[in-house]
Amino acid sequence: MFEYLKRHSSKAGKPPGTVEYVGEKAEEQVKITVFAYSEHDVTVTTPARLEDCGRLRAPGTVFWVNLDGVHRTGFVEDAGRVFGLHPLVLEDIVHTEQRPKMEDQGEYLFLVVKMLRWDEAEGRVVDEQVSLVLGDGFVLSFQEEEHGDVFEDIRARIRAGKGRIRKCGPDYLLYSLLDAVVDNYFVVLEKVGDAIEDMEEALLESAGNTQLEELHVLRREALFLRKYVWPLREIVARLERQESELIRDGAKIYLRDLYDHVIQVMDTIETFREVLSGMADLHLSKISLKLNEIMKVLTVISTFFIPLTFIAGVYGMNFRYMPELEWRWGYFAVLGTMGIVAAGMWAFFKKRNLL
Amino acid sequence: MFEYLKRHSSKAGKPPGTVEYVGEKAEEQVKITVFAYSEHDVTVTTPARLEDCGRLRAPGTVFWVNLDGVHRTGFVEDAGRVFGLHPLVLEDIVHTEQRPKMEDQGEYLFLVVKMLRWDEAEGRVVDEQVSLVLGDGFVLSFQEEEHGDVFEDIRARIRAGKGRIRKCGPDYLLYSLLDAVVDNYFVVLEKVGDAIEDMEEALLESAGNTQLEELHVLRREALFLRKYVWPLREIVARLERQESELIRDGAKIYLRDLYDHVIQVMDTIETFREVLSGMADLHLSKISLKLNEIMKVLTVISTFFIPLTFIAGVYGMNFRYMPELEWRWGYFAVLGTMGIVAAGMWAFFKKRNLL
Amino acid sequence: MFEYLKRHSSKAGKPPGTVEYVGEKAEEQVKITVFAYSEHDVTVTTPARLEDCGRLRAPGTVFWVNLDGVHRTGFVEDAGRVFGLHPLVLEDIVHTEQRPKMEDQGEYLFLVVKMLRWDEAEGRVVDEQVSLVLGDGFVLSFQEEEHGDVFEDIRARIRAGKGRIRKCGPDYLLYSLLDAVVDNYFVVLEKVGDAIEDMEEALLESAGNTQLEELHVLRREALFLRKYVWPLREIVARLERQESELIRDGAKIYLRDLYDHVIQVMDTIETFREVLSGMADLHLSKISLKLNEIMKVLTVISTFFIPLTFIAGVYGMNFRYMPELEWRWGYFAVLGTMGIVAAGMWAFFKKRNLL
Amino acid sequence: MFEYLKRHSSKAGKPPGTVEYVGEKAEEQVKITVFAYSEHDVTVTTPARLEDCGRLRAPGTVFWVNLDGVHRTGFVEDAGRVFGLHPLVLEDIVHTEQRPKMEDQGEYLFLVVKMLRWDEAEGRVVDEQVSLVLGDGFVLSFQEEEHGDVFEDIRARIRAGKGRIRKCGPDYLLYSLLDAVVDNYFVVLEKVGDAIEDMEEALLESAGNTQLEELHVLRREALFLRKYVWPLREIVARLERQESELIRDGAKIYLRDLYDHVIQVMDTIETFREVLSGMADLHLSKISLKLNEIMKVLTVISTFFIPLTFIAGVYGMNFRYMPELEWRWGYFAVLGTMGIVAAGMWAFFKKRNLL
Amino acid sequence: MFEYLKRHSSKAGKPPGTVEYVGEKAEEQVKITVFAYSEHDVTVTTPARLEDCGRLRAPGTVFWVNLDGVHRTGFVEDAGRVFGLHPLVLEDIVHTEQRPKMEDQGEYLFLVVKMLRWDEAEGRVVDEQVSLVLGDGFVLSFQEEEHGDVFEDIRARIRAGKGRIRKCGPDYLLYSLLDAVVDNYFVVLEKVGDAIEDMEEALLESAGNTQLEELHVLRREALFLRKYVWPLREIVARLERQESELIRDGAKIYLRDLYDHVIQVMDTIETFREVLSGMADLHLSKISLKLNEIMKVLTVISTFFIPLTFIAGVYGMNFRYMPELEWRWGYFAVLGTMGIVAAGMWAFFKKRNLL
Repeated sequence: MFEYLKRHSSKAGKPPGTVEYVGEKAEEQVKITVFAYSEHDVTVTTPARLEDCGRLRAPGTVFWVNLDGVHRTGFVEDAGRVFGLHPLVLEDIVHTEQRPKMEDQGEYLFLVVKMLRWDEAEGRVVDEQVSLVLGDGFVLSFQEEEHGDVFEDIRARIRAGKGRIRKCGPDYLLYSLLDAVVDNYFVVLEKVGDAIEDMEEALLESAGNTQLEELHVLRREALFLRKYVWPLREIVARLERQESELIRDGAKIYLRDLYDHVIQVMDTIETFREVLSGMADLHLSKISLKLNEIMKVLTVISTFFIPLTFIAGVYGMNFRYMPELEWRWGYFAVLGTMGIVAAGMWAFFKKRNLL
Repeated sequence: MFEYLKRHSSKAGKPPGTVEYVGEKAEEQVKITVFAYSEHDVTVTTPARLEDCGRLRAPGTVFWVNLDGVHRTGFVEDAGRVFGLHPLVLEDIVHTEQRPKMEDQGEYLFLVVKMLRWDEAEGRVVDEQVSLVLGDGFVLSFQEEEHGDVFEDIRARIRAGKGRIRKCGPDYLLYSLLDAVVDNYFVVLEKVGDAIEDMEEALLESAGNTQLEELHVLRREALFLRKYVWPLREIVARLERQESELIRDGAKIYLRDLYDHVIQVMDTIETFREVLSGMADLHLSKISLKLNEIMKVLTVISTFFIPLTFIAGVYGMNFRYMPELEWRWGYFAVLGTMGIVAAGMWAFFKKRNLL
Repeated sequence: MFEYLKRHSSKAGKPPGTVEYVGEKAEEQVKITVFAYSEHDVTVTTPARLEDCGRLRAPGTVFWVNLDGVHRTGFVEDAGRVFGLHPLVLEDIVHTEQRPKMEDQGEYLFLVVKMLRWDEAEGRVVDEQVSLVLGDGFVLSFQEEEHGDVFEDIRARIRAGKGRIRKCGPDYLLYSLLDAVVDNYFVVLEKVGDAIEDMEEALLESAGNTQLEELHVLRREALFLRKYVWPLREIVARLERQESELIRDGAKIYLRDLYDHVIQVMDTIETFREVLSGMADLHLSKISLKLNEIMKVLTVISTFFIPLTFIAGVYGMNFRYMPELEWRWGYFAVLGTMGIVAAGMWAFFKKRNLL
Repeated sequence: MFEYLKRHSSKAGKPPGTVEYVGEKAEEQVKITVFAYSEHDVTVTTPARLEDCGRLRAPGTVFWVNLDGVHRTGFVEDAGRVFGLHPLVLEDIVHTEQRPKMEDQGEYLFLVVKMLRWDEAEGRVVDEQVSLVLGDGFVLSFQEEEHGDVFEDIRARIRAGKGRIRKCGPDYLLYSLLDAVVDNYFVVLEKVGDAIEDMEEALLESAGNTQLEELHVLRREALFLRKYVWPLREIVARLERQESELIRDGAKIYLRDLYDHVIQVMDTIETFREVLSGMADLHLSKISLKLNEIMKVLTVISTFFIPLTFIAGVYGMNFRYMPELEWRWGYFAVLGTMGIVAAGMWAFFKKRNLL
Repeated sequence: MFEYLKRHSSKAGKPPGTVEYVGEKAEEQVKITVFAYSEHDVTVTTPARLEDCGRLRAPGTVFWVNLDGVHRTGFVEDAGRVFGLHPLVLEDIVHTEQRPKMEDQGEYLFLVVKMLRWDEAEGRVVDEQVSLVLGDGFVLSFQEEEHGDVFEDIRARIRAGKGRIRKCGPDYLLYSLLDAVVDNYFVVLEKVGDAIEDMEEALLESAGNTQLEELHVLRREALFLRKYVWPLREIVARLERQESELIRDGAKIYLRDLYDHVIQVMDTIETFREVLSGMADLHLSKISLKLNEIMKVLTVISTFFIPLTFIAGVYGMNFRYMPELEWRWGYFAVLGTMGIVAAGMWAFFKKRNLL
């Protein structure tokens, strides 16, 4: 749950700007993908080294480098050298437990966002850090793992030249990447929303231990979702208001649209949290109601038979002189008395509204 | 409950500006209604195609196009072409799960609001998205469905030339449409308020499972209402402060009035939420009180008879040598003892305040 | 509880500026009272029509028109004509479910506040809307009902020429009216505070159903009080900062004083709410404690006698061969065993801290 | 608890600026103490009338008048005349239920703060209003009662000429008075903190009715403390930012220090409130845990013996034909059966984790 | 828990600027360590008196004095004299219960922060005050105790000339010290996070008294952590925006990075608080669920046997005339009846969902 703390604390005592990977060392290969495109042209290469593709950069061309696997810190340091990134930026890229943020470094904008994925098997949200750099004519994107990214549609659109993407500059590409990340939040939220709905249905039926623990897990998930999305609002708002020449005015309408989506994601998470909190109350109330029902049964049956059993006990005593025992109709009189007592009890329960 | 998430998530991966309807495909016909009016004149037509009515636009004339049924995206795209709307605006119009918002696009203002309706049958609030565009001399309104809109009175007033509406420009028409939407919120709130009052009365009488679940549903309704109305405050506030020439100063006093109404709606929803939250507490306390009462009955009756039954049990033992059994008045002595024990119990309960 | 919603919703579909009364049509007569005073002079009349008293207006004279009974909308429309009020203002005056507010209409200031009264018979707070208009040389005040207003002292001071009121202008009169309204809030809060204190005392004694329901009612009252007073803070703050020439600088120190009072009222209401919320927690805890006590009694008595009764039951069996039954001291041995078991139980309860 | 409301409400209907004492009329004498000091000189007198000591005021001399006993409103009105205070200020001085506040009256600054004292006997916080006026060359301080003030150290320092106080102007004296008031808050908070710690210890031991009610009282105390201290933050912040010439720049560093102390007091009160709220939750949980324990005992003992008692009951029946009764080893067989049932029960409880 | 209050209150009545230590008087020696370094040179001395090392200060040299043990107030006063610190600053340095803060004193910046340590033995967070002064060419750091500081890595880096530290000025040194403090927070948070995770696991298994009290302790810890870290956000934000020449622009990017870390610490603490609050709810619900289970067992077993025992009791009565007793199959008939009753009970429980 708080694993990222372990990674953070392992950094204590290191000088700032130390480029050291803190996540689990993934086995898989690192992969560099480079797109260089203009309105009429697109080149896609996967070079072994970043320096190899410098010749592709040209005025009027948008240059997008995507790096899968930041655990190979050497590649990140290469990128830093080639594109002139600050050591603290490189540290943040490989230190994959950043809070989402945006920094205007003058020459370039640096963004950290979280890509979310719903792990069907474990029934929980998995996050992956995506660092984005928008510079003059280029966009860099750094991902933790190769599989499971949400940019496939963008790649397809660039290749096919569909939509506006080939006609626009790197700011539009940055927007498209952010938009893809945020659009995917809706997919994750849908899964969480489904889980909440299932939960609610189950809860209205029976309020047991399983529901309680699932509810607890869902509330924690919502807490973490919120932690990842909340800072995004400010990031996108600042991007839109940005004075930087890297974001042209034409892109602002798209950023405003993105901002609306982020607000909607946040709204939804807050709604989830409130619904879940209401469900926790509901659960507690349902348990109490159930207890009432159980105790009603016990109370009614106990208080019904206890006096009757006492009467039977009295006439089970072995005293030598118990006149009633000798009476001809004693037994039946006692049975009758018991009937009357039972009827009285019944009336009492009815009056106290216990039946 | 979270259906809109499904619709959103289905959009992931699509390029921005894709005009695609996400709601359920309604069967019903699409209907275009065009009002063109000035102080002395009014023309109402229902053309099959939007292009057909361009000749009605004239200086000094207010041109209002109302489209019922945004699922026919072709019509929306027509409107976009005729009135020069941005693709992102068209996308928002047909994407009927927007958060209420206002965008100043320079040439025109674009607003999204929610029209609410109380579905008597299901006992819940139903929402429908209304998108409004205010341009130079025209107002466009896009609705999801044909039936159940709240603009009938405005149409009547335009036709009859009653009130100020014919004398004023499109900004006043926009205000009137918003005012109609907000006025209808009061109708919906009244229904919800009635449900809350019924609930409260029922709750003070008995705190069972039905009340609990109804309470849960009402709290969720209030949550969703809030989500729809909250953004409206900012929209109207921004409209009022707007520098745009589309809103003239004369309209601002009306917008201020509208703002007051929105604040009042929000106040009421917050009050609902607080009252409902207080009722949830009340419910829990009532259950606990009820349990106390049940347990009091059980405790009193059990502890009353248990010692007596024990005494009877002792003299029901079959030992050969039990001197009391032979006593002439043994039986009566035991009955007397039981009476004394019972009286002592009674005193004890009285003292402990358990009776 | 939510009656005002009914009144609001009945307005849906009406054009803005419709002057229509929404409260219950009071039977009582409408009454116009006009004060025209300067430092040395005062005239009080109760004309049948507002137009009749125009000649009393003169430079250097403060002209105060008080109207009791806004249900006679004709009178309000008269006032609108005579003093040049906007239709929306008139609508707000007769529409007696406004949120307290202030509007600067240039020529005049328009204020809506709530006059509160404690209804001793029903034990709840009753509100009445007071609309105030401050113009050049005049103050208008509109009340819902004739009886029970809080301005009697002001009238007496004007008549007697006591204090500063005759020496000052209409802005001071407006302040005096607002001050009288706010001072009366303290009277109402005192009543509510008394009810809370009684409640608390009752609660510390016993936590039953009556306390629970009274607590619920008090919380709701506090909620409504807050709703009426909260907007007042902003109104008075804006009045004080007002650039308008209608409020002279000399009046600002009084408005600041009034502002302090409003803050104090709000502080008190918030304190009420927190105290009441604490009392709800206390109530729930007391119920649980009570249940513990009840169950302790049941548990101790039951577990004390149940084993003893079992022993008695064993020796009440009718087996032919039960050696103990034949023993000379069997009965007494069993009684002794029972005593030992009872003592053991006692020790056990002591140790588990159950006695 | 809400006594001050009674005092406020008694003022309703009085014209503003009425100098009337609202607290309980104290019997004790009123006492005026006048300090006039410069770096090299100090005169202390206790004149019977304020006018008598006017000749002590001189340029370069700090003139401090302290009045104990504002219930003698005549003295306050004297001070108002001599130092030119506004009637509303005088009203606030004698009206001892003010919210702490600061007013810049141009010629002078007027402050109201609360002096707190811990009443050891009643175990609660007692407040006393101190009004301070800082003018050109003078400071006035008005207290409710003679005994128990926190300025004794300041008087000693002035008399002895220790520290900076004699070298500085009236702004430093004002700061010193405020500092003494705030320093004393720490003394009060320490007492409350001790009470909370005792409470917590008691609570971890046993969660009974006493703890519940003490907790309730402590929460209310914390609520009132907060009410008195909260406005102080703004007062000191405004003093520090003050443009007024009455506060010289040299004093600002001290005011900043004071501000830090006020923040720390507020932090502590908020911490108290959170700790107390956590303890209320703890209390409720402990009660529930206790109930579980009680019920476990009852359940185990009851369910253990109830089946055994039933078996004994069966063989206590008096049927003529009950073959088991005649068996040679019937009695022992039944005892054995009971043993087996008991062992089974034991296993069941173990499995259900009830023992 | 609230020990710092005792220390604060002991200061009441003292004049401001009194340099008096308030913590426990530590026995250990005071230690002064002086670093004087430039890019190419470093001198480390531990002089007995501060005056002795004045000659080390030179232009272009960063001069860092670290004092362990502020309880020797003489040393602090020496430092004040040598570096020209204000008495209030000295007071704050020795008064080790400050709220974290920053003051711009013109000539120098004064900061107070808290160094946190996890005391493994007691399982709680221990704090130590670190006061920092950044002046022209020098940094002073004051610590409470000698052992356990977090600056060892910085000392090593200065000695070894690794990283940027030797190349940068005192502002970078100040940043490094703050960064070391904040990095160590992650270590502490990791420990707390581990404790929370252990807690959660334990809680999901069983919800007893131990868990309850540990939870209470953890919540209090989180409360205190928050109190120490919260003000840091503002400190670092103000440092970054600082106009002062003491912080050069080159250092700002590092301060921004530090700011991100502080935000992340705060986020984590808030998450802790929310998780712990959720766990308290979970605990309460689990207790209630457990109670339900216990009561179910009691109810089922009691209500099962009570009617059967009653039947047995009836036929244990000693009436002379009880026809059933004489019947040949009476006994077996009764056993059968009991079986039928038991089966009926079973069905009833199944239906009411109690088994």
